[in-house]
This record gives sequence, structure tokens and C-alpha cells, in this order.
Amino acid sequence: MTVRTTLTASLIALTSWAADAQQPDLANRRLTPEDVRRVAPALEAYTQDGLYGDVWKRPGLGRRDRSLVTVATLITRGQYPALTYYLGQALDNGVRPAEISETIVHLAFYAGFGNAFGAIGPTRDVFAQRGIAPDTLPKAAPTLLPIDEAAEADRARRVGESFDAVSPSLVKDTTEVLFRKLWLRPDLAARDRSLVTVSALIASGQVAQIPYHLGRAMDAGLTREQAGEVISHIAYYAGWPSAFSAMAVAKTVFEARPK
Amino acid sequence: MTVRTTLTASLIALTSWAADAQQPDLANRRLTPEDVRRVAPALEAYTQDGLYGDVWKRPGLGRRDRSLVTVATLITRGQYPALTYYLGQALDNGVRPAEISETIVHLAFYAGFGNAFGAIGPTRDVFAQRGIAPDTLPKAAPTLLPIDEAAEADRARRVGESFDAVSPSLVKDTTEVLFRKLWLRPDLAARDRSLVTVSALIASGQVAQIPYHLGRAMDAGLTREQAGEVISHIAYYAGWPSAFSAMAVAKTVFEARPK
Amino acid sequence: MTVRTTLTASLIALTSWAADAQQPDLANRRLTPEDVRRVAPALEAYTQDGLYGDVWKRPGLGRRDRSLVTVATLITRGQYPALTYYLGQALDNGVRPAEISETIVHLAFYAGFGNAFGAIGPTRDVFAQRGIAPDTLPKAAPTLLPIDEAAEADRARRVGESFDAVSPSLVKDTTEVLFRKLWLRPDLAARDRSLVTVSALIASGQVAQIPYHLGRAMDAGLTREQAGEVISHIAYYAGWPSAFSAMAVAKTVFEARPK
Repeated sequence: MTVRTTLTASLIALTSWAADAQQPDLANRRLTPEDVRRVAPALEAYTQDGLYGDVWKRPGLGRRDRSLVTVATLITRGQYPALTYYLGQALDNGVRPAEISETIVHLAFYAGFGNAFGAIGPTRDVFAQRGIAPDTLPKAAPTLLPIDEAAEADRARRVGESFDAVSPSLVKDTTEVLFRKLWLRPDLAARDRSLVTVSALIASGQVAQIPYHLGRAMDAGLTREQAGEVISHIAYYAGWPSAFSAMAVAKTVFEARPK
Repeated sequence: MTVRTTLTASLIALTSWAADAQQPDLANRRLTPEDVRRVAPALEAYTQDGLYGDVWKRPGLGRRDRSLVTVATLITRGQYPALTYYLGQALDNGVRPAEISETIVHLAFYAGFGNAFGAIGPTRDVFAQRGIAPDTLPKAAPTLLPIDEAAEADRARRVGESFDAVSPSLVKDTTEVLFRKLWLRPDLAARDRSLVTVSALIASGQVAQIPYHLGRAMDAGLTREQAGEVISHIAYYAGWPSAFSAMAVAKTVFEARPK
Repeated sequence: MTVRTTLTASLIALTSWAADAQQPDLANRRLTPEDVRRVAPALEAYTQDGLYGDVWKRPGLGRRDRSLVTVATLITRGQYPALTYYLGQALDNGVRPAEISETIVHLAFYAGFGNAFGAIGPTRDVFAQRGIAPDTLPKAAPTLLPIDEAAEADRARRVGESFDAVSPSLVKDTTEVLFRKLWLRPDLAARDRSLVTVSALIASGQVAQIPYHLGRAMDAGLTREQAGEVISHIAYYAGWPSAFSAMAVAKTVFEARPK
């Protein structure tokens, strides 16, 4: 293939990711509250009274953080229809458009490229409705934040010692693409990037990586109380089993940290 | 925001969950058997002969239970298109509309609220086709079943001792929202509620909670033979790996119980 | 029900699986590169430069294998919109139509029947566009490859000893439906069947079965270098957490094998 043909093909691939996320007739296909009542009246009550009336108002975690956690959970689980509402709510709660953009980019790596592309359609619609211009969004290659060379060298050494003989390219990409590039993009704070990552891990049942990333989130300022609220918040969006598995791992993380 | 605005916003959120589950042109988009033959003729044979001709007819688990297990598995995995057929079949096999309604409410907590809302559209359609009136469905706040205070206090104490210092709100909601409310709703028997929960755990690969819930299911009357058939049934709907992981855990549960 | 009625009902069930995968207006709903730029310009750069410009060109795993791994990953994760592009690319990269057909049949068992049916619509479209005739595809019941009776007897004995008392029907189906039938279908080589299986396990986070199937893949010719590249390739399509969990298990597999 010529370079031109390759580029055309990969643009098709790029856009094909999200074919089902762009739904011009989305509004017409929305369920009404009456539909919910015709099937499960209790579901409406649990949503209004329990989820919106209680969980979202708990003081242990701010509404902005809850929005970021919810958006990350929905993208990780591929639940794009609800995303339109929660993206609008995230903006209302103080998440900046640039932070939403970076959350999607971040989740390409922590939930899969397909999940990130699935979020493009709903986000484009919400940004358009709000008049959010593309020039306010993070560039493809911004000036990166300074790196903590000692900490990163230590991380890279430990991962390399364990896994250089297993998947050298994953070890290399983890360093060069993730920790020396993605994590240093300036438009999502380190603490928020960790919050998004931990949410993705809980929402996808990937508990094995929770200790590293929850520790990193707490190093960046996430408190124990906030971490506990993140878990109970995600219980509603990803199910109790995911939250219970995460709570068991969080316990070991809390106990291993200095008070 | 005023109360009114908040309510409107949350009704939008409520209904936005299931935007993609309501498909007016669903029938027109169905694949024909000829489509399957044009891609994978063996898939038709495995479905007709293996799945419907053998698995569904095995005596170890009744067709009603298999319907409940299948519906729970599909909702947990977000596979709504197949749900329309399996909901109709569930009604034919003796699952009552009120039990389907409660299964959806139950799975809001064990598979995630988005998954429950995803089931609303197909269920509304099936209920409408069958002339099932909303007044036959469980109310939002029915008279609850009596609770086994000793057993619940023991469960709450053990969970609290382990996790009060990790996620106090998850511990609290587990007691107040789940075990003192959801599990006592009268229109789904304790044994069936456990069957739905275990199916959700297997279907989502959340093996860590299987021991508690499988034990609870067996306390409520699920036999070993039935549990074994639940696992092999779900193998077809959620894949062999989910079933094998569940089988390994079920073995430890069986061995720890008195014969 | 009469036999005729049963057959009709199950044909409806058969086709209802994939209702949302058949999208006549798929092309109109595609996102444009401009849509991606309006939300996350970096996502386009990471896709073009990182994924297509680097990962897909790495020498450790051929493009044909990468296509097979990607298609298996997307089907396992239910990401059908991207499948259309990647199926065409798989054919361009040397995957035969019969191999794609067998991959779908294989994944019915390793990712779930619903996932296999979800792949029918996009595959039918791609086959139709390429003029691939149904008579070139594997039959429902082809002449099977010879079996290694000693190895299969050993596998069956070990599984039976552990699990005959837990789920006898799953043990039986694993032998009779999978290892004495599915795995012996001739149109997907043993090594490729293992490659598809391992990809499904990584993509669904089912690490517990990776040791057996990765060992089997390597017995059939998959090299360590290729296995390591499979893991880093899937990192992009299913997220870093899935890949890291798989890498930890692969390490134990590599260390337990003779050099």
C-alpha cells in the first residue's frame, strides 16, 4: 500500500470504532419515565431517592469528583447512551471540557481504544450543544509536565525486572507511551488521572492493578474517605460485586500505608 | 437548582440510561438464519442441536430456572437484543411478569444501574405484546418479607468488622439498601433472588463473591445438581472461561458444606 | 409445542442475538476524523502514530496474526462497529474467510454465543462486499482432524477428577462438544485456535485459564516473542490492565516451561 492508501485506511479504522455511538435519532429512542414504570417502578424510586437523593449528595466526595468517576465508569463499561446526560452534568459540576477530553484519551489506554472512540459521539454532541470550541481542548502534543525522574526510574526498574523477559514491548510502551507521555499531559491533574484510572480498574473488575494505582492516587492527594466513597459510588454504576472486590483490595492498600 | 429542575434533570438521566435499548426498527434489523449460514453454518447447528436440542432439555435444572438464569446473564452482559426472545420464553416457561420486574430491579444492584435500565426497553415491548398491565407489577415500596434478624446481624457484623474502616458508606448501603430492603421485596423468592445473583456473578467473572451467594442459594434450596447445571448453562451464554472459573469456586463451596 | 413451532421459535432466538449488529445505516453513522478532533485530538495522533504507525508494524508478530488477535479481541468485547474495518483488514493480511468463520464459531464457546451472533452482521457485510461465497466456508459438520487420544485422555481425566462432582455436564460438554469436536474442526489450525482462545482470555480478563491455553498455544508453535507481542497488542484494544494481568500469568507459564 502507498502511504496515502494506508492513511485513508487507518482513518476509516479510526472512525469505524464509534459507528454505533453516533445516533442522530438518539432523542427519539429515549425511554420515558412511563416506560420505566411499566416494567420496574422500584427502579425509578431507587434512582431518584437512593442514587440522586442520597449517594450523589454524600459529603465524602465532591460532585465534581463523582462526575469524573461516573464518566470514567460508563466509558470503561461501554455504556454510551447514559454518557450524554452525565457529560452535561460533569460540565455543570465543574469538570472542564479539557479534562473530559483528557479523560477520554487516558481511558484509551486504561479501558481500550474502542471504549475511547465510543465516547467521541456523545461528547462531540454535548460539546456542540454547549458551544465548546475545539481550540479550547488539549492539543495532540502539548508541553508535558516535568517528570519525577527518581520515582519513574524506580517504577520502570521494578516492572522491567519482572517482565522484560515476558513482553518487552509492553514494558517499553508502559514507560515511553504511558508514564513519560500520557501521564505528563498537563490538562488533567495527576490526582484526577489516578482517580480516572482507579475508577476504570474498579469498573472493569481488574483488581490486580488497584494497589499500585490507588496508592498513586493517595500519594497525589486522594484521601481514604474519598477512596471509600469512590468505591461505594461505583457500586451503583458497575454493580455491588465490582465494589466489594475493590473494597477488599483497598483494605490491604490502606493497611500498608502509614497512617 | 430548584427542586423542580433537579427532578427534571434526574428524569432525563433516568431515561437516558436506556437510549439504545429502545429500537423501533428492531424487527427490521434482525438477522435471518440465511445470514448466519452465509458466515458460520456451524453456529446454527451448535445453537439448534447443542444449545436448544440438548442443554435446555437437561433434567438437572428446570426450564423456568434456565430462563431466569439466561435473562440474568444477558442483562449482566448487556446483551439486550437477545433479551426480547428470552423474556418471551421466560414467560412461556412460567416466570411471572412480577418476577421479571424484580429480577431487573435486583440486577440494578448486582450488575449496575445502567444494565437494569438497558433491560427496560425490551421488557416494556414484551409486556405490551403480552398485554401485561403495570398494576400487576411489584410496587416501588411493597410490604417487605420478615427478616431473619440473627442471620442478618451476623452478616452485617462480619462485613462491618472487615470494611467499616475502608468504605463505611458501602457497608451501610449493603445493610440498609440491600439486605434490609431489596432482598426482602416479596415478588421474587429468596432462592430465585440468589439464583439471579449467582448468575450475575458467573456472567461478570466476579468469582470472589460466589462463595457467599452460592452458599446462600443452597441454604435457600438450590441443590448441588442444579448449581452444577447453572454453571454449564451459563457456559454457553457467557463463554467457557466464566463457567470454568465459577466451577473451581463452586467446588470449594460444595466441599465446605455438610453433605 | 410441536417440533415445527419449536424450530421456528429457536430460529427467532437464533437471529435475535444479533439484532443490533445489522445496521443498514452504519455508514451514515460513522464518525469523521473531524469528530475525533472536536473531542480529543490526541486520540487521533495516538491511533495513527502509536497504534498503526508502531504497534502494527512490530516484527515480533506478523500482521496476519495481529488481525486474528484483534478480531478475537473485538468479538470477545462485543465491539462490533470496529469489526467491519478489522475484518476487511484481516482478509487483506491473509486471514482466509474460512478462518474468520471458524474464529466466530470458536468464540461462541470461549466468549459466549451472543458475542458470536453479534459478529454475524458485520462479517456477512464484509463477505458480501468481497464476493465471498458461502460454499467456500466450513460446513456445519466437516471431517474432523485426528485426535491425540493420549493427550486428550489425560486432559479429560484431570478435569474429571477435579470437577465431575461439581458440574458433570460442563465436564461432559468440555470433552464431547469442545475437545472432541470444536477443536478438531479442520479450517482453523490448532495454533491459530489457541491464539484466538488466548486472545479471548486476555480480552475478557479471564486469567485463570491462561496457563493451560497459553501452554497449549506454545506447544502448537507460538513462540515466547509472539506471545509477548500478543499481550502488548491487546493492551491497546482491551486496555493496559488486561494486558498487565495477562503478562503476570504469562511469566509463570514461561518460567515453568523448558527453555
